[in-house]
Amino acid sequence: MTPAFAVRLAEAHNRFDSLLCVGLDPDPQRFPAGFSRDEAGIKAFNRAIVDATAEHACAFKPQIAYFAALGAEGALEDCIAYIRKRAPHALLILDAKRGDIGDTAKRYAQEAFERYGADAVTVNPYLGTDSLAPFLAYEDRATIVLCRTSNPGGAEFQETPEADPLYLRVARTAATAWAEMGNVMLVAGATRPRELAAIRTVAPSLPLLVPGVGAQGGDPEAVLAAGLDAQGRGLLINSSRGILYASQGPDFAEAAAQAAAELAGVLRAGAAEKLKQAT
Amino acid sequence: MTPAFAVRLAEAHNRFDSLLCVGLDPDPQRFPAGFSRDEAGIKAFNRAIVDATAEHACAFKPQIAYFAALGAEGALEDCIAYIRKRAPHALLILDAKRGDIGDTAKRYAQEAFERYGADAVTVNPYLGTDSLAPFLAYEDRATIVLCRTSNPGGAEFQETPEADPLYLRVARTAATAWAEMGNVMLVAGATRPRELAAIRTVAPSLPLLVPGVGAQGGDPEAVLAAGLDAQGRGLLINSSRGILYASQGPDFAEAAAQAAAELAGVLRAGAAEKLKQAT
Repeated sequence: MTPAFAVRLAEAHNRFDSLLCVGLDPDPQRFPAGFSRDEAGIKAFNRAIVDATAEHACAFKPQIAYFAALGAEGALEDCIAYIRKRAPHALLILDAKRGDIGDTAKRYAQEAFERYGADAVTVNPYLGTDSLAPFLAYEDRATIVLCRTSNPGGAEFQETPEADPLYLRVARTAATAWAEMGNVMLVAGATRPRELAAIRTVAPSLPLLVPGVGAQGGDPEAVLAAGLDAQGRGLLINSSRGILYASQGPDFAEAAAQAAAELAGVLRAGAAEKLKQAT
Repeated sequence: MTPAFAVRLAEAHNRFDSLLCVGLDPDPQRFPAGFSRDEAGIKAFNRAIVDATAEHACAFKPQIAYFAALGAEGALEDCIAYIRKRAPHALLILDAKRGDIGDTAKRYAQEAFERYGADAVTVNPYLGTDSLAPFLAYEDRATIVLCRTSNPGGAEFQETPEADPLYLRVARTAATAWAEMGNVMLVAGATRPRELAAIRTVAPSLPLLVPGVGAQGGDPEAVLAAGLDAQGRGLLINSSRGILYASQGPDFAEAAAQAAAELAGVLRAGAAEKLKQAT
């Protein structure tokens, strides 16, 4: 039987000594010269990025929209198979932000966990507990629930009402009702460290997936200060474009490796420092 | 140029004198004998249902999860092409409940409107206005925003806080900020007629997509009473399983046609009655 997700997450953190998740958002318009703009080019580019970053990342996160928009499900399957071969100890998160009810939710869980074999999938909480149950039923996988997102409109509904904002109600529900099997995580954007800290307070032991460092401007140090758990873990910090397109020239792979190594190093040092202060 | 979505919706309503949307949730386990459980079977079953119901429906709504779970994107493409050929005046709604930010939201809009050529797509509002903008930018298509869903957990976040519930804030925002181009609709579950009426009050002119009659137990009369607009329109009432699996025997197509005709008739009579009372 596959070990529980929490065990695999801890193992991945320790094996790579890394909090870094590499997001795979393949945009053919931004590929270096020499890559075709079709499905074959997407496959080749993803493989090159996985090769370049595998030693620095404890997780990879393909974003399904980049494949689905182009009818390139085959490239997503190829990408996942390549990650499993090249980085067998890394966790694989399918970023899909699904959300539906009943039988339909079961189908989306089947898409993520069976068709693509993901270790974790991102989901949307708007439809409530029964919409998440078919995902949570996969005990050895993780369900990563959107909580506070980093985009300009993230506050519109998530921050209301001020006295008891939606994102904190989602975080509290996740930390209690949804956390029974230890396979729930939350998405908390890097650009909102104050809200990240509030989430950490109401969900002290849930791992957080944090997008928004790098291209979106989130500060890694602020994220560590707000989001690390008591063990100096509990964070998967994602960078996509900042690594994938660090260079669009012939040195793109070296540049991606360097960007991943640098961010992983900043996170490693910051986490060690915070843990030292705490003891 | 394609006419605005509102024009096409009115034309479809008038041409078919119908408020019925037929939801296509193809479940191979429920197919009648004679259909294979693979992609070929899904294609054949969908075609048979479209043939049986085309004269009664002003819209079809394939649910993408039923295809994606099985890697059957080809069957979804076939289904859509067949609807376009067999029912060229019906609207085609892709039920996908997508929701993401920035470039990723653009890719999901591209998936729905370009790859699949849908007239409308369902989306999730949790991430706010900028997450919907890439969908709304397709002026001749409709963006159908989840508002109040019919599942047991629908109240958990959507009905809070009691004084100013999230679903009404979504409805108000849709009726104002998102409605500028006349291409936004809302999802309001049939099992909650009181909430449907509240949505109609704050969004008097937005068309509503109403799932939940039939198998889920919503009452068509209550939906009409709560949701019709001043013109006796403004509703697309969806039935999926109640039509698709009306019989699982060799008479499934006749049973589907009859279920669609009956529901369309109930809706037609109810809408005419309500309009008569109003004048």
